[in-house]
Amino acid sequence: MINIPKGTKDTLPSESAKWRYIEDSLRRLSSLYNVREIRTPMFEHTELFVRGIGDGTDVVNKEMYTFEDKGGRSITLKPEGTASVARSFVENSLDAMSLPLKMYYITPCFRYERPQAGRLREFHQFGLEIYGASSPYLDLDCITFAYEALTGLGLKNIRLHLNSIGCPECRKTYTAALKEYFASHLDEMCSTCRERYDRNPLRLLDCKSPDCKAIAAGAPRISDYLCDGCRAHHAKLQELLKGAGVPYEIDEGIVRGLDYYTRTVFEFVTEDLGAQGTVCGGGRYDNLVQSIGGKPTGCVGFAMGLERILMLMEKQGITFPDERVGVFVMSQSADQADACMRITAELRRAGVSADTEMTGRSLKAQFKYADKIGARFGIVIGGNEISSGTVKIKNLSDGTEEECALGDIAARMKEKING
Amino acid sequence: MINIPKGTKDTLPSESAKWRYIEDSLRRLSSLYNVREIRTPMFEHTELFVRGIGDGTDVVNKEMYTFEDKGGRSITLKPEGTASVARSFVENSLDAMSLPLKMYYITPCFRYERPQAGRLREFHQFGLEIYGASSPYLDLDCITFAYEALTGLGLKNIRLHLNSIGCPECRKTYTAALKEYFASHLDEMCSTCRERYDRNPLRLLDCKSPDCKAIAAGAPRISDYLCDGCRAHHAKLQELLKGAGVPYEIDEGIVRGLDYYTRTVFEFVTEDLGAQGTVCGGGRYDNLVQSIGGKPTGCVGFAMGLERILMLMEKQGITFPDERVGVFVMSQSADQADACMRITAELRRAGVSADTEMTGRSLKAQFKYADKIGARFGIVIGGNEISSGTVKIKNLSDGTEEECALGDIAARMKEKING
Repeated sequence: MINIPKGTKDTLPSESAKWRYIEDSLRRLSSLYNVREIRTPMFEHTELFVRGIGDGTDVVNKEMYTFEDKGGRSITLKPEGTASVARSFVENSLDAMSLPLKMYYITPCFRYERPQAGRLREFHQFGLEIYGASSPYLDLDCITFAYEALTGLGLKNIRLHLNSIGCPECRKTYTAALKEYFASHLDEMCSTCRERYDRNPLRLLDCKSPDCKAIAAGAPRISDYLCDGCRAHHAKLQELLKGAGVPYEIDEGIVRGLDYYTRTVFEFVTEDLGAQGTVCGGGRYDNLVQSIGGKPTGCVGFAMGLERILMLMEKQGITFPDERVGVFVMSQSADQADACMRITAELRRAGVSADTEMTGRSLKAQFKYADKIGARFGIVIGGNEISSGTVKIKNLSDGTEEECALGDIAARMKEKING
Repeated sequence: MINIPKGTKDTLPSESAKWRYIEDSLRRLSSLYNVREIRTPMFEHTELFVRGIGDGTDVVNKEMYTFEDKGGRSITLKPEGTASVARSFVENSLDAMSLPLKMYYITPCFRYERPQAGRLREFHQFGLEIYGASSPYLDLDCITFAYEALTGLGLKNIRLHLNSIGCPECRKTYTAALKEYFASHLDEMCSTCRERYDRNPLRLLDCKSPDCKAIAAGAPRISDYLCDGCRAHHAKLQELLKGAGVPYEIDEGIVRGLDYYTRTVFEFVTEDLGAQGTVCGGGRYDNLVQSIGGKPTGCVGFAMGLERILMLMEKQGITFPDERVGVFVMSQSADQADACMRITAELRRAGVSADTEMTGRSLKAQFKYADKIGARFGIVIGGNEISSGTVKIKNLSDGTEEECALGDIAARMKEKING
């Protein structure tokens, strides 16, 4: 037997409706927000992620699915969605369209990590990307979208953590202060933190190890280092969030793992999922487009992990609509198989979901099958039904029956099921 | 600048609604047919495709994106959808569910081929897979689905070509007869055909080169070699297709490129796309599940190339629904920005797609933007509107205006737009 690759998962027929429910809800919200879909390939030239995400990040250094294609190009399965959207924006001159341009994506992403609950090597993200806008109103639009997406799915116990990590200017001063502070504590910190000290000192602030956490608690705070522009942006966004009724808390530990963030960063977190508490993370990335060869372009966005959203919905007992077949047409004997096919075809043409016995099983086995596929109604076709021109429609939930002329089945079932 | 990998394509915000239109139409039909979605990872262990598709095929020999992951496993991006579904069926014991099990997928697939119009290295397929059913009624169900999917999208000039390539038993005799026939013509045939002679002699029948075609025309015909079981299956399917009103023609040149087919094979072809004439291909593959380690399981299915479907729809002038924003809320000056955000939020909460100015542009620039995003109505908010409590709603298509109380905007627009 050949198994599924480690860290990946099938979505089985019994589970897929849940995914579509989540995706449809996000697509509907996108349409309300004037956000249009963009789709990019599953892989990109490796250089895009090195330049876009940053070669000091764990994602780029340790986690990418990188390989050579038959033409000798270095190709990488996308580890996140933003860099590809930025590449598409530049390559297709989307800045020539009226800005801001608001886009969403739903895509698999790939990171070679140790698989654990809520963390897969192939996972799925919904992302929002707003390009061509530096004003905090767009930050508000983006955060409000995420907030309504989560609450719209019925989720509870999720809190918005907000921070500003400044622009490259103020971050330079801040990073120097951080390095000075951590220099004297480095030998008490974990090996990952010691590595990060040179490569990505901001990440020293979000280590999960208790020892490192205690040390980080005494570190200089970014809020004391923001320049006037960054400070004003951060203040205006908070005022707007209050006005929009979106609750938040300032959390200076939020730094995000990718190099491209500037100013606003945020996470929606929950305590209901154990360690994997972040269901949505994002922020502003005003330098990304330029770093991959485009014009300076203010951008804000977020990504939402769909596996975690689904886990959380299940954990919180949120119910999903079920996927049931309207009618199962059964044949008394194999002689009626062709008649059953015709009736089923009529039902489907009338917009009623229907299926019929095609394998010649006994009536008992057919009722069992109808039950397994969750059929709402059953109709048995035998010699008597054909000669009398009348059938019985059986409600398979409560067992009640009603008569119907053979030629009226489609119209009757359409009315009963679709209303 | 970093470019998109060769042979792949972005779906831009201006185009993505077309894709969703096609996908939604296929999903709706699936629901009518009692077909549920299955999703499998983008990559599999390479061995799955070698065993499932066959190591004599072009796909496996020349076209796969195969690489080693960081754990040293040989991984391949899926070149088609069926082998993964079969793997999932076996691995998850889906035969324990009531059979037949009817599944669909929508997925990217990857083949390293020379890119040309309608042939990409990353392309997209919709596939139907019916597992656990050997009767020709399931072949009918599958072909009818494809026929209705294509006609349901408004496509014309598509013809169904049907053939039977028998079971391993009768095919053995037939292949021997083919090899005997072609042996004396091999030196007049193209180099690809000469390669195929040993590896995959059935493929000698569908070479596109005129010389090879002329030779193939005189080859023994599979219909003279079918065993009684295969002959009866083929005859019953044709009777059922006539009964269902699905037009078809027998075409003994249809052999399909993959090893797993048995008995029924079919293609929906058009002359409207030049050389890339096949928009949908499928058939029966009764030995696939067993070949990858499962129990013998009768299966029938097809895959449809979504790029080609879209190309054909565009070529045939089929119109797609447009994606327009309901209302664009404009601010007379930056002072009204917060009020505009609030009104926009109310509209969205009422289910009306809406957006507003967030970048402080002039009213003229705002009207231009509203036009570019295709907004149906515009509302200008200024100091007068705020103090009088009355706004004008402008229909941006015909320029007509009507008055509305500030507090009634959401209700009024909901009625006007969503009816």
